[in-house]
Amino acid sequence: MLDEVYAVCRDDTSGAPADYIPELAAVAPDSFGLCLATADGLVYQVGDTDIGFTIQSISKPFTYALALADRGLDGVAAHIDVEPSGEPFNEISLEPDSQRPSNPMINSGAITAASLIDGRDAADRFERVRRCYSRFAGRELTMNEAVYESEARTGYRNRAIGYMLRSVGIIDVDPDDAVDRYFRQCSIEITCADLAVMAATLADNGINPRTHERALSTSLTERVLSVMTTCGMYNAAGDWVTTVGLPAKSGVGGGIIAVLPGQLGISVYSPRLDGQGNSVRGVAACRELSRRLELHFCHVTRSARTAIRADYSVAQLPSRLRRTPDDAEVLAAHGDRARVYELHGDLLFAGAERAVRAIEGNADELDALVIDLRRVGEVSRVARGMIEQLQAELVRRGSRVALVDPDAKLGHEVSSLDPDDPRGRVFVDRDTATEWCEDIVLDRHRPPGTSAITSIDLDEHPLLMGLAAADRDRLCADFIGRTFARGEVIAERGEPRSGLYLILAGRVRATFAGTDGRVHRLLTLSSGMSFGEIPMLTGEKFVNDIVAETGVRVAVMSAAVFDELAEQHPKLKLALLQRLAAGAYAQMEATVRTISGNAENY
Amino acid sequence: MLDEVYAVCRDDTSGAPADYIPELAAVAPDSFGLCLATADGLVYQVGDTDIGFTIQSISKPFTYALALADRGLDGVAAHIDVEPSGEPFNEISLEPDSQRPSNPMINSGAITAASLIDGRDAADRFERVRRCYSRFAGRELTMNEAVYESEARTGYRNRAIGYMLRSVGIIDVDPDDAVDRYFRQCSIEITCADLAVMAATLADNGINPRTHERALSTSLTERVLSVMTTCGMYNAAGDWVTTVGLPAKSGVGGGIIAVLPGQLGISVYSPRLDGQGNSVRGVAACRELSRRLELHFCHVTRSARTAIRADYSVAQLPSRLRRTPDDAEVLAAHGDRARVYELHGDLLFAGAERAVRAIEGNADELDALVIDLRRVGEVSRVARGMIEQLQAELVRRGSRVALVDPDAKLGHEVSSLDPDDPRGRVFVDRDTATEWCEDIVLDRHRPPGTSAITSIDLDEHPLLMGLAAADRDRLCADFIGRTFARGEVIAERGEPRSGLYLILAGRVRATFAGTDGRVHRLLTLSSGMSFGEIPMLTGEKFVNDIVAETGVRVAVMSAAVFDELAEQHPKLKLALLQRLAAGAYAQMEATVRTISGNAENY
Repeated sequence: MLDEVYAVCRDDTSGAPADYIPELAAVAPDSFGLCLATADGLVYQVGDTDIGFTIQSISKPFTYALALADRGLDGVAAHIDVEPSGEPFNEISLEPDSQRPSNPMINSGAITAASLIDGRDAADRFERVRRCYSRFAGRELTMNEAVYESEARTGYRNRAIGYMLRSVGIIDVDPDDAVDRYFRQCSIEITCADLAVMAATLADNGINPRTHERALSTSLTERVLSVMTTCGMYNAAGDWVTTVGLPAKSGVGGGIIAVLPGQLGISVYSPRLDGQGNSVRGVAACRELSRRLELHFCHVTRSARTAIRADYSVAQLPSRLRRTPDDAEVLAAHGDRARVYELHGDLLFAGAERAVRAIEGNADELDALVIDLRRVGEVSRVARGMIEQLQAELVRRGSRVALVDPDAKLGHEVSSLDPDDPRGRVFVDRDTATEWCEDIVLDRHRPPGTSAITSIDLDEHPLLMGLAAADRDRLCADFIGRTFARGEVIAERGEPRSGLYLILAGRVRATFAGTDGRVHRLLTLSSGMSFGEIPMLTGEKFVNDIVAETGVRVAVMSAAVFDELAEQHPKLKLALLQRLAAGAYAQMEATVRTISGNAENY
Repeated sequence: MLDEVYAVCRDDTSGAPADYIPELAAVAPDSFGLCLATADGLVYQVGDTDIGFTIQSISKPFTYALALADRGLDGVAAHIDVEPSGEPFNEISLEPDSQRPSNPMINSGAITAASLIDGRDAADRFERVRRCYSRFAGRELTMNEAVYESEARTGYRNRAIGYMLRSVGIIDVDPDDAVDRYFRQCSIEITCADLAVMAATLADNGINPRTHERALSTSLTERVLSVMTTCGMYNAAGDWVTTVGLPAKSGVGGGIIAVLPGQLGISVYSPRLDGQGNSVRGVAACRELSRRLELHFCHVTRSARTAIRADYSVAQLPSRLRRTPDDAEVLAAHGDRARVYELHGDLLFAGAERAVRAIEGNADELDALVIDLRRVGEVSRVARGMIEQLQAELVRRGSRVALVDPDAKLGHEVSSLDPDDPRGRVFVDRDTATEWCEDIVLDRHRPPGTSAITSIDLDEHPLLMGLAAADRDRLCADFIGRTFARGEVIAERGEPRSGLYLILAGRVRATFAGTDGRVHRLLTLSSGMSFGEIPMLTGEKFVNDIVAETGVRVAVMSAAVFDELAEQHPKLKLALLQRLAAGAYAQMEATVRTISGNAENY
């Protein structure tokens, strides 16, 4: 695409390089470089992208940026306005009332901006400017001495502007110093590739995507881009906004930068200029790229609208805590009263408004809900406030709210256990948050008088219940009681089969090492459930670590006893196996149904 | 939030309503209405949002829009430029060279735009203007006769502008007709709530989000918003762009609209004006809203960057075709050579670039890949081209590519079976596309000499193999052979247990009715697998429909025989059950592991 645009624009050899000083007139007039840099720092390039040339007026937004950083918005606004002037860039006139230059993109405004740079002395002030540009470019830039000397020798008009600005008090330091710094900044040598990175840094909210260094704060970046939008392209601003639609700046050296905020930067170098002082091929290439790539700022993505990436009830996607049959029944009936909302993308107002509206619309049906922020990028101040208000409103209406927010994007550094605290619980993974939701649903919807069973006797275990009393007693005798302390490893991955374990009290967790190098829970089992059957039935080894999540009491039938049972009491073993198989199938069915529940996902 | 902004701005009672005609001076000066409309048409409002007032200059972008629709971009550009003028709105001066008005937001440009409206006669031309505004507002608007008559009686300056435009040939029809239409359009009565919908229509690419009617094409909407950006706020354009950063238009009736393209519209009504002719509270409210809600156009969301919603291999999320153990082993070893990429959001250049780059970066490792477009909104022309090029490049490198694109967002109306056609296969759901991927991986990675088993004898069925020959023969005698034609129902949901089915040839599908009302596949089973065990073991009914996906040959052990087996041959039944249980556990384990595979999801 870039090659095509390059080929289309190369043929136009109209215009001529600036010739007000011999050094500018001496460039190769048909040089042509074109770059497109993504906001994550990849630079696509074609042509003469490594030829050095002087930055000239493209310096203006960057010195303005440094002045804003040094003096603040108001400190700079007292000296420079932000209105398009409708006049040539080197016009000496100032605003009638305030005497301020109309904007920092015309020479009078740029010289004023140069006067506002902090520093110990003139050398230090320029060094700060040079370092600022270098931060944007991601490499150490230097000044072209020959161009500087020529500019300094002949720049009568800019000196006049400097003295005039001093005469009306807009510049309150030595005007020669400001004008000299302006000549120096214009003489800094860059390449088309450098400009692409500088543009990408503006696109990336002031962060250089190559060095990951902050070159400018987000809010000041916004200001600089605003001024570039209305004042960046000399007198062609309106035409530029309609046909290109990107904040931009051009320089008489033949460079142009253009920025699609948040997304990409474009740079062009081609020294032949049109009547307005803009690079002929530069304007053409930006127009062509904007048209082909649909970069116009009014042609923005609507993805901000869909801040909810997915939402589902805990019945559809339960936690990995395997519930008892009674609890599973309650969750099957009432699990739709707890939902997980996964948000994604950057959360700005419009996306947050959609998400909050959708969540609030369901809220009366919900006992609990989880807002999962792990896939969210930047959270704007307003979005943070909106989600906090949503939490307060939901708590007021009787729902409990939890966040999955391991990076504290919402600024809740501490999980709150107080059920009336609208800031609520903060979890680091969805599984735990979902379990918390399920517990709330169970608390509210368990039939009166029932409660979570936490401890049973061996003969109450579902695997044995329902057998004839004599059979059950005989089987019970074959089990041995054991206890494990919290955190104790019951079986390790790779261990051979060690028995059929029936859980009588406490919780047991099966874990595995994820591809991310962390240990994840596969399942949590509790009293009334069993484990170790698979190695027992298949003769294979344990494939997970089995760890006591709480203190645990189990009954174990050893492998030897299990094998002997077939010889001694085949019908009893048959009954046991039938129960194991039925349980396994029912569990599989439920699991598969859970995955399938979200039908639209397939 | 809107209430707060309203309260903050209400106290400012500076400025005065326009008084150049008595009808404007007669309004209640302290009326104040404020609306925010989302791009999907929800209007948040506070205050006097239903008071009628005349649209005045806010009409200008809408008549300009109609002129663009009637005459095209070039046809209008020959008469009106798009440059900010830097001069008052009622200035008579024209551009020195072309004699054109600088832009359509000053009176001379607006009158010229009114002259460019098509129609049979003057009445028809105005009726077309009125209908155009009504389409934007979503209701039939009418003209305020008193205001019109007063404007028409006293509008000497605008008549002068009309005649001057006629004298230089910019208006080539009767100037009185154009000026009269301009007076009429300015006198159309709207409310603050109407303006909000009009602004939201501009935000929604020209589609009225309430009526779903197209008021203007997307590309012309972009043009209108561009001109509003640079020229909408009289002389305060630069200040407006830096402090509000939204395309906007104000009118001396006291209204202001502002638009965040793709996201929302704002409208304010408060008739006291500042020195530049803009509503005092209107400007303040827009500033406050932009600041609080971070609406500045340079502060865009970065979500366009993350066009890939999720990506995973077919080993991580397999199709619902249950594979034979041999094939499952091949897929476990090589399933990472086929990946699904789910895209989402609107696909514009920057997001598509990211996605294409990520997919291409993995491509050498892939035999097949699926691009799932179901969650994608608008696909821009450039993104479509990029994905097509990606497909061609992948096919060139030896990968097969399929799309999940039921709505033909990429314009591929027909799935191509030709493996060399880069446009490739197009599926309507991911499950089928994933199965297709798995087939490619199996074709390429099955051990030489092996092939998919499609038909077995009963004694080769895994459930019976490995038994002693005598036992196997005895069991085989208990099964009855049956065949089903393609599409035939083998068992219906709710039916009681009818036997243990072993599949010998063909495919069987378990289906369920999704919440979306459509029938979905839960699983497909093939030769060597079994079904009907769960009802058999648990005594429960079938929970899915079981349908022959192809012609099917099965062997069935009836419920009666299954039950008797325990009495007659307990050890044989024990062996059978042990196999069923082990198989079920292994399957469950694999299923759970699949869900858990995507660890970062939890």
